Amino acid sequence: MSAPYPFLKGHGTENDFVLLPDHDASLHGELDAARVAALCDRRSGIGADGVLRVVRTEAYDALEVSAGARGQDAEWTMDYRNADGSMSEMCGNGVRVFARHLVEEGLADPSAPIPVATRAGTKLLTLTDDGLVTADMGRARVLGETAVSVGPATWAARHVDVGNPHAVALVDDLDPAGPVGPLLEPPTHDPLLYPEGVNVEFVVRRGPRHVAMRVHERGSGETRSCGTGACAVMVAAALADGVTGPGDGRGGDLAYRVDVPGGTLTITWTADDRVLLTGPAVVHSWGATTL
Amino acid sequence: MSAPYPFLKGHGTENDFVLLPDHDASLHGELDAARVAALCDRRSGIGADGVLRVVRTEAYDALEVSAGARGQDAEWTMDYRNADGSMSEMCGNGVRVFARHLVEEGLADPSAPIPVATRAGTKLLTLTDDGLVTADMGRARVLGETAVSVGPATWAARHVDVGNPHAVALVDDLDPAGPVGPLLEPPTHDPLLYPEGVNVEFVVRRGPRHVAMRVHERGSGETRSCGTGACAVMVAAALADGVTGPGDGRGGDLAYRVDVPGGTLTITWTADDRVLLTGPAVVHSWGATTL
Repeated sequence: MSAPYPFLKGHGTENDFVLLPDHDASLHGELDAARVAALCDRRSGIGADGVLRVVRTEAYDALEVSAGARGQDAEWTMDYRNADGSMSEMCGNGVRVFARHLVEEGLADPSAPIPVATRAGTKLLTLTDDGLVTADMGRARVLGETAVSVGPATWAARHVDVGNPHAVALVDDLDPAGPVGPLLEPPTHDPLLYPEGVNVEFVVRRGPRHVAMRVHERGSGETRSCGTGACAVMVAAALADGVTGPGDGRGGDLAYRVDVPGGTLTITWTADDRVLLTGPAVVHSWGATTL
Repeated sequence: MSAPYPFLKGHGTENDFVLLPDHDASLHGELDAARVAALCDRRSGIGADGVLRVVRTEAYDALEVSAGARGQDAEWTMDYRNADGSMSEMCGNGVRVFARHLVEEGLADPSAPIPVATRAGTKLLTLTDDGLVTADMGRARVLGETAVSVGPATWAARHVDVGNPHAVALVDDLDPAGPVGPLLEPPTHDPLLYPEGVNVEFVVRRGPRHVAMRVHERGSGETRSCGTGACAVMVAAALADGVTGPGDGRGGDLAYRVDVPGGTLTITWTADDRVLLTGPAVVHSWGATTL
């Protein structure tokens, strides 16, 4: 147990996070893997999919020796940790909740895109008039075809990289009682193509430019939402719909609704080949913890 | 979303709770099932196995029309709700966390047993010098033999009632890879004996007066701990060890260590036929929420 320090909790489409305001980086050296895991433990801790440490970039850069490929042009740095305490480059839903927090605390001006430094570079966040938050996720790279299997069922899948690897399979039925099953184990994938594992998305069509997905995240199992996964799904679905891309392939942007178990996201593929992740992001609780 | 109101979070052997200080019962009418479920949701809420509303008995009795069989001699009432928002009589680990909270806030004097009114009557709570909290759970009624099954495996089980029904089976191996399995489904039980379902405990011996258990709680699935279950397990193990009871059967008390997945509990069967539930209880976080 440590001296009490502040925290907040929030989520984006039920991808949930503990936020740790640490503007002057005073938690440096104290926020080790064990502390992060204790905060994220859903029984003995607060419980979350990960921790969003909120640090001024200047303070972060003065202390952290392996800052990695982050932007230098953002006032705020998101130091993202997985629930098990390991480091992670980026989190699409996390950075949206991070931006919501900055604006609610008066730490950022929502009238212009807000830059946030991450280990995957600077991301631009935009708060929309209808209460949503958009993250510019950069380019999704389409890398060919593969296949994934669950038990005896095998589906063709598209290999898409959104900073992390995805295999997107169009299926007929997402029901856990159907061929996709309850996803208690990682789907079988090509170990040569994905030597460090892969996030696997199963997708059904719901209507024009509207799909629904379930996702098995490497290292986490099935989750309620995956921001990069929704981006990969949108691009794969658009290509399957005959779009030649980027965007609508004819100089315009293209938007799809992507339903995830935890809510609804909108993914926009821009004519200049960026992918925008839009959805709800809320911070509902705040306080102090001794964890 | 409502106006912010205070909460705390804590746990006893990883049975975790959101505490709502509501001394004057002003949440009356607002704390409906949907609000409780929102607080307990582990993705979109704070996340917990249940809610412990902390109300002065006087204020509670002035407002609640169906208070039920609660004690009138306790300053504080624990209004316990299950994670799905339904009402529940009592929670052994919850009332221990409740007592820890009262003492930490200066609301109760730990130098004597603390009475807490619940829907199952007044419970007495004692804080021990070694940092643990004991709940006097009253009498465990031993009601004969039955059987439980998981897949092809069947075990004899003892029917014990600790305010709620239990079936306790002594087994050779608790490993989820063994016959007990991962407990993803309720074990098969006698529907005539348990028309409203049953909590099923699987128990292995670890040494003299020392057992370990896993539990499948009706309505909740496998959990990290169950206070009443640990009490039922201790009494069943003592009887299997030849104790004629109550207590050691010879006028003295009898204590067993019961390991649960979330920690260690000590259960004492007293010579005057009460069961005492002792273990850790911590409140680690506090703040405000708009959920």
